[in-house]
Amino acid sequence: MFSIMSTSTKKEKAEPVILVTNDDGITAPGIRNLVEAVKDLGKIVVVAPDKPQSGMGHAITIGQPLRLHAMHIFDGVEAWQCSGTPVDCVKLAVDKVLHRKPDLCLSGINHGANHSINVIYSGTMSAAVEAAIESIPSVGFSLLDYSIEADFSAARKYARLIVEKLLKGTPDRHMVLNVNIPSVPDELIKGISVCRQAYAKYEEDFIERNDPNGHKYYWLTGQFVNFDEGKDTDVWALEHNYVSVVPVQFDLTNYVLKDKLEKMWKPS
Amino acid sequence: MFSIMSTSTKKEKAEPVILVTNDDGITAPGIRNLVEAVKDLGKIVVVAPDKPQSGMGHAITIGQPLRLHAMHIFDGVEAWQCSGTPVDCVKLAVDKVLHRKPDLCLSGINHGANHSINVIYSGTMSAAVEAAIESIPSVGFSLLDYSIEADFSAARKYARLIVEKLLKGTPDRHMVLNVNIPSVPDELIKGISVCRQAYAKYEEDFIERNDPNGHKYYWLTGQFVNFDEGKDTDVWALEHNYVSVVPVQFDLTNYVLKDKLEKMWKPS
Repeated sequence: MFSIMSTSTKKEKAEPVILVTNDDGITAPGIRNLVEAVKDLGKIVVVAPDKPQSGMGHAITIGQPLRLHAMHIFDGVEAWQCSGTPVDCVKLAVDKVLHRKPDLCLSGINHGANHSINVIYSGTMSAAVEAAIESIPSVGFSLLDYSIEADFSAARKYARLIVEKLLKGTPDRHMVLNVNIPSVPDELIKGISVCRQAYAKYEEDFIERNDPNGHKYYWLTGQFVNFDEGKDTDVWALEHNYVSVVPVQFDLTNYVLKDKLEKMWKPS
Repeated sequence: MFSIMSTSTKKEKAEPVILVTNDDGITAPGIRNLVEAVKDLGKIVVVAPDKPQSGMGHAITIGQPLRLHAMHIFDGVEAWQCSGTPVDCVKLAVDKVLHRKPDLCLSGINHGANHSINVIYSGTMSAAVEAAIESIPSVGFSLLDYSIEADFSAARKYARLIVEKLLKGTPDRHMVLNVNIPSVPDELIKGISVCRQAYAKYEEDFIERNDPNGHKYYWLTGQFVNFDEGKDTDVWALEHNYVSVVPVQFDLTNYVLKDKLEKMWKPS
């Protein structure tokens, strides 16, 4: 954890600016719960998609312009809905809403898990990763409950706890945390566990149907399979009622394979 | 480099099945050049988007079904256009076209660079990463020329050379290579260089306009800035007329930060 958060000393620390976004859309209960959980910890500004953007990964909008509209849906909190993807929201927020880099970016609370390989498909996590690429420390929060009526109380508690921890310190400017919260009552949660990403994924099984004209179409479905027996993974932690925290990186270089290839493929 | 490619011995090796996809769409010159470059090296099957999907990252289609249509646009090569993203193409190809995992997945040749941080926004590279998640070794190819009339001759030569290398060996089933080819005549290319991903990115600068009703909209633009002075990066290699090869991983865990956090945030 290195310096970035503030050039002032701890005592003088100005009110931190916290950008909040998500991928379920600005009207989702998850983002409302996140805003309420951290509202008094800084100046909150919400820039979130105007429609659900689950599974959008790190998509950006190319070839068409973006819109921003002020929204008055969070009591006393500046909020904008954006016509783009979660990643677009972060880019636009920095350049056209905040006109500066916020001190922290929070994404979520997602309705549904973003552990294991899901991190790569997740709009919630991609928004957080985008922030870190732009030198803004960030956290994505996800609750293991897809329901619109999910109970966010434990998720709120841990989101606040983690944000408080980060604001007390000076997180690395490229820091991204992927936080998943088990869908159990707060009293059953054993605490926070720092983990690695499990190799667990959906095994696709497209469902084939015919439209009224007799043409086929396919629905993406799949079954979640955990291929990873490690006890240091996010999937393991969540199964054992821990809040999982996986630090995420955006340097995708596979250094192990790089070393092997360098030996095999000497510059020709 | 571990075993997977074939359970048979080298001499008995069956014709490899090679899935080809891209993000510029099935009618782009880049994919035609890729198919032509490797056509005689195996059984080629093309499943590619029916429209441009640049910048789609690892997006998948949720909430609406997908379509597949047979196309007769590559001489003697089975080809399908898909209504989804590049990642959808890979998933559908395995489950509904090939009904098996291909031996290799190739993506591209992209019209434009996918070096440095671009790997994370790129539909071309996300298709390749998706293949590797599904235990299919894969390579994404990109030419540093956005033009529809780009000269693909050097890119074709190196794509073929790399595919030949891989087919001779037994690449790890989770292998992904991000290959970028400089936009210079073949005789100026110095060879292949195995690199790491540079920390170089676009600095966003949205252009603000007003529509005829006086409402603002924003176009994403930006300037490419290289923050990385390393001589072992893809950006450096390309600037010095090497074909850059970056092995890519989909375990996004930041292990360095994980170690630090474990010390700071002991399970509570």
